[in-house]
Amino acid sequence: MQKPQNLSFVLKDVQKLEFEDRPLPHLKDPNDVLIRVKFTGICGSDCGQIGPFKLEQPMVLGHESSGIVEQVGSKVTTLKVGDRVTMEPGEPCRRCNKCKIGKYNLCPAMAFAATPPYDGTLARYYRLPEDFCYKLPNSMSLEQGALVEPLGVAVHLVRQADISPGTSVIVFGAGPVGLLCCAVAKVFGAEKVIAVDIQLSRLDFARKFEATSTFLPEKVSASQNAERMRIENGLGDGADIVIDASGAEASINTGIHVLHPGGTYVQGGMGRDEVNFPITLACTKELNIKGSFRYSSGDYQLAIQLISTGKVKAEDLVTDIVQFGDAERAFEQAKAGTGLKFLIAGPEE
Amino acid sequence: MQKPQNLSFVLKDVQKLEFEDRPLPHLKDPNDVLIRVKFTGICGSDCGQIGPFKLEQPMVLGHESSGIVEQVGSKVTTLKVGDRVTMEPGEPCRRCNKCKIGKYNLCPAMAFAATPPYDGTLARYYRLPEDFCYKLPNSMSLEQGALVEPLGVAVHLVRQADISPGTSVIVFGAGPVGLLCCAVAKVFGAEKVIAVDIQLSRLDFARKFEATSTFLPEKVSASQNAERMRIENGLGDGADIVIDASGAEASINTGIHVLHPGGTYVQGGMGRDEVNFPITLACTKELNIKGSFRYSSGDYQLAIQLISTGKVKAEDLVTDIVQFGDAERAFEQAKAGTGLKFLIAGPEE
Amino acid sequence: MQKPQNLSFVLKDVQKLEFEDRPLPHLKDPNDVLIRVKFTGICGSDCGQIGPFKLEQPMVLGHESSGIVEQVGSKVTTLKVGDRVTMEPGEPCRRCNKCKIGKYNLCPAMAFAATPPYDGTLARYYRLPEDFCYKLPNSMSLEQGALVEPLGVAVHLVRQADISPGTSVIVFGAGPVGLLCCAVAKVFGAEKVIAVDIQLSRLDFARKFEATSTFLPEKVSASQNAERMRIENGLGDGADIVIDASGAEASINTGIHVLHPGGTYVQGGMGRDEVNFPITLACTKELNIKGSFRYSSGDYQLAIQLISTGKVKAEDLVTDIVQFGDAERAFEQAKAGTGLKFLIAGPEE
Amino acid sequence: MQKPQNLSFVLKDVQKLEFEDRPLPHLKDPNDVLIRVKFTGICGSDCGQIGPFKLEQPMVLGHESSGIVEQVGSKVTTLKVGDRVTMEPGEPCRRCNKCKIGKYNLCPAMAFAATPPYDGTLARYYRLPEDFCYKLPNSMSLEQGALVEPLGVAVHLVRQADISPGTSVIVFGAGPVGLLCCAVAKVFGAEKVIAVDIQLSRLDFARKFEATSTFLPEKVSASQNAERMRIENGLGDGADIVIDASGAEASINTGIHVLHPGGTYVQGGMGRDEVNFPITLACTKELNIKGSFRYSSGDYQLAIQLISTGKVKAEDLVTDIVQFGDAERAFEQAKAGTGLKFLIAGPEE
Repeated sequence: MQKPQNLSFVLKDVQKLEFEDRPLPHLKDPNDVLIRVKFTGICGSDCGQIGPFKLEQPMVLGHESSGIVEQVGSKVTTLKVGDRVTMEPGEPCRRCNKCKIGKYNLCPAMAFAATPPYDGTLARYYRLPEDFCYKLPNSMSLEQGALVEPLGVAVHLVRQADISPGTSVIVFGAGPVGLLCCAVAKVFGAEKVIAVDIQLSRLDFARKFEATSTFLPEKVSASQNAERMRIENGLGDGADIVIDASGAEASINTGIHVLHPGGTYVQGGMGRDEVNFPITLACTKELNIKGSFRYSSGDYQLAIQLISTGKVKAEDLVTDIVQFGDAERAFEQAKAGTGLKFLIAGPEE
Repeated sequence: MQKPQNLSFVLKDVQKLEFEDRPLPHLKDPNDVLIRVKFTGICGSDCGQIGPFKLEQPMVLGHESSGIVEQVGSKVTTLKVGDRVTMEPGEPCRRCNKCKIGKYNLCPAMAFAATPPYDGTLARYYRLPEDFCYKLPNSMSLEQGALVEPLGVAVHLVRQADISPGTSVIVFGAGPVGLLCCAVAKVFGAEKVIAVDIQLSRLDFARKFEATSTFLPEKVSASQNAERMRIENGLGDGADIVIDASGAEASINTGIHVLHPGGTYVQGGMGRDEVNFPITLACTKELNIKGSFRYSSGDYQLAIQLISTGKVKAEDLVTDIVQFGDAERAFEQAKAGTGLKFLIAGPEE
Repeated sequence: MQKPQNLSFVLKDVQKLEFEDRPLPHLKDPNDVLIRVKFTGICGSDCGQIGPFKLEQPMVLGHESSGIVEQVGSKVTTLKVGDRVTMEPGEPCRRCNKCKIGKYNLCPAMAFAATPPYDGTLARYYRLPEDFCYKLPNSMSLEQGALVEPLGVAVHLVRQADISPGTSVIVFGAGPVGLLCCAVAKVFGAEKVIAVDIQLSRLDFARKFEATSTFLPEKVSASQNAERMRIENGLGDGADIVIDASGAEASINTGIHVLHPGGTYVQGGMGRDEVNFPITLACTKELNIKGSFRYSSGDYQLAIQLISTGKVKAEDLVTDIVQFGDAERAFEQAKAGTGLKFLIAGPEE
Repeated sequence: MQKPQNLSFVLKDVQKLEFEDRPLPHLKDPNDVLIRVKFTGICGSDCGQIGPFKLEQPMVLGHESSGIVEQVGSKVTTLKVGDRVTMEPGEPCRRCNKCKIGKYNLCPAMAFAATPPYDGTLARYYRLPEDFCYKLPNSMSLEQGALVEPLGVAVHLVRQADISPGTSVIVFGAGPVGLLCCAVAKVFGAEKVIAVDIQLSRLDFARKFEATSTFLPEKVSASQNAERMRIENGLGDGADIVIDASGAEASINTGIHVLHPGGTYVQGGMGRDEVNFPITLACTKELNIKGSFRYSSGDYQLAIQLISTGKVKAEDLVTDIVQFGDAERAFEQAKAGTGLKFLIAGPEE
């Protein structure tokens, strides 16, 4: 049997995963580089449909990756072969209005890894423009490099939320992104960071990680849970900021109820397309409600800095590192919700 | 029969309206003034419950008023007896955190006219601090003065929406506040101002007033109505700004669908407490969603300027001016939805 | 004598201007287009050194141009041969941090027309990426198209200044950019727009154009001129916004003095590198002081819209249109300060 | 000799200090409290003229104070006799436009301690509204309470500067306010905090306190010092943020030079009224330049929180605590520039 040139882990159809050999990617532009992928994290959103995007042809999975530069285009100046990098896995058009106002995450032509129809990074090789590959500081491992992506998501969420020193922040959902939001909120100076989840084990982890306290919702109304949260945490007329990293209807409603007038709510989690929503309360409290989608300029840079300086110990979230050949098992565990973050090592030589 | 000293129009209970003589209000502070009320507009929200506030004792109605200064406190410097004024009908505490950050409309101790338990302005006399009474320019009538309140609501809504020249704005609901939002959006430079309503007569009015075009929703999904609105109005990937002045679930949903990624949505209308809401779309499009409640610093001043310079012809909305004794009839017509804005003249001598 | 292929008007050395035939520009990228230049405006900054940039080799002048598409690259989708366009005459790198946060005007690799060492647009042909060429609406002439550049400068200045309805704005310098700032400030809703200049003829023009009043400074201190300006214009404790389009030390100082506490000052004019500056006043009044440099995303689009809808009559500023062969004379007149804006027609066939 | 009722330390004339017995202050409003002053810090600005304010009659000095509640007005709800408080030493009008937009520090009617003609806090008793007295947490001493004022100044400065995680900040002037700015910048997440001063001993202190590095300017041009600062600190194209807490012309100029395009400069120090200023550079780099004056809503609250949680060790700045009778000596030492912060204990029983 011939050695595969670009072994890839492919979603052939909903629920159907396979290994497949794919052609080597070519540099499309003199500013491109080719990366030998070393570690890839997996998350819930890898496991099926993402927001409005639908799978119509087989697609390589994976978008949370680090690797080593294998080849550089003729105009590349910031990277050289052998450099260790973390990969921001999307390429915007750079020419549309969204790109030009600094919101390339909203570019309609964005080619984002593992978002149909674009192949992901769970392969031996992946091509990117040099400005979307960030050289890792010496103090950072390639394993840590694969965690920059989810931390970038959390950085973007927290930046949407305008967290500053002294504020109180409630994070709904204590999965990887929610936990990283707690950590980033602390870096932004939040005084109180309250993690909310329905799994006690996740709340235990959150307290050991970066939450200053936790909250287990009861089966009561959103306003009742909100009221208890306010009292238990000395929040007065309410929290300054809510981040939802759960997508659950009950969380969303409790979040709107627990904010004080003028507070800020950021939606990051994606669950059902539509939920029952207390719109009149949002109106009379003059809330600021924002969506947060992926990451944009500066988010990866800050995420790298936070990991490399030890301010965010993203590596604490890693439950296991599995070999490429065991990728399917990792996906199954991720889907089962056991553990937090699984890394898949790149294919062997 | 003795002459009443402060004849008032009182909501005794839900649906039960009566005239009643009340004691003369006293100046509580040397900065207070006493106003002889001359005209009061009525609106839907006068007719019952407002957001979270509930009637627990009889309450004088009315909060959209103009009048003439009858008495001034010892420290009043900007007004004198006989001055014609428009009245901003709420008194915040001035000492809480909300007041001190410039959001007195969110002050929890706000004493707001005709919001239980505070009496409204549909009386012969009303007391206010001088800084909440604004002298009318000579070019403005007292009838116009009574329209400053709803225009102030519209100014506050438009300011929340960050409208600037060249933008496209969709206003859902073509009642008085929605129509005034169209006019204010034009003043802020909006290029396209699209009014949406389910009453054809209101759309006709909107086109003659300040909308650049109108839209009559069909009985199809929110995304289908949004798609048609985009095509008919050349909005490309969507509108820049949506203002909801209707509170209707269908409007709210269509509004979220019709915005382009990064767009801004402002909720002003109040209908049902909770609605079905496309939260995932708000998330992936990174929308900015804001509530707008009453008005705050600077809103009245701008509203006065817009009326007095003729930039907003608020007086065009007045359907009828009725005598004080006919107040109940005016409320009935307002509730029936015939006409736009009714003014009630103050009680005769 | 052979027909020149790309006749150009060249600054050979400070003060030395010549015609020269240059090679035809080539499309460098499949998204590029080649423009046959039709009209080019000239301004003071064309006449020598610009800020920190120094001439080190002969350079084609001109950067305010319109023209007709002559050739399109293989990936161009929004333009076709024969389209009439206005040209945004700079190409940023699209990859640096400044580009990615939406401030491409600050890109250190910006290749900007007629800023050394980059050749300008006063030639028969000029190459640009398609996204920096904007198709003119049918209602706009090519002459108007050449005025989009200075209007874009004014739009950017006014956007830095956060002008909104009801504000008072003082514009120092009533040359083309200052006058256009007056007009754009009006579009943004400014109530008072006061033009300041030391030439009476320019103030006369300003009043006929878009200033609501004008001010001729006396030879007194900045604070004395500011005081008179406040009184004459009913500005109370000062103006909301100052835009300096003069670069003159006296203007800058008067501008800082005339603002009320919390006001906004935008520096657009460039005169001496350093001036005497009332820094303690800027500190105790908590002013917001901003620089404005060229234009960035959205500025050209709005400028086109303002001209095409007749909201800004930029064409009123055109003093004369001269033939390409008379370019030097136009520069001399511009330098002499007679007239406002001169357009140079593109070279004949 | 009779016991004095309200012994005060008074500036009789420029340079002339005396003790004097003053009448007991009376509560002016039912929301007022009377404070027995316990500790008062002194700073440079106590020693003479402050910005535009001039001494025209004898005035009690002092404005950085803590104390114990001695008497409460009839409507006071948040404080009781015996409570330990820190005092925000100014009372705004609460009714003007500046107060109502949340900038009471710019209120023209502000009665601020030890700013002519308002008496300061260096007395046995001082009257304040309850909402300007903040109860000290148990973890904070009265000595720390007297340091909330200068820390509030630093909090306000840093808030003007929009410091967020990952940013580079240069603070000019390593006196008490500059040093506190370094500490607050760290709390806001700044990655690099570079203190600049011409006294080596202050730089030594800064490094032990909260600066991540320091810089001693040489007698070269502003651009040369800026260039060296950029290189030594790996700042690339410049610093993100500059805070000037020195007021020195050389600092101001170096600050403008050392920022990258789009950077933010905040002026806090007050030296000469006017300085030579590189305005064209501020223009072409599109800098954001802001003044910062005293403090406003929320600044004291955050300052208290930062001290009480140990995030800012303001007490490290205290050089000496002197008895009330030795106040003049403390002023002399402060003026001589030996030491950082002197506290004066309140008069004995």
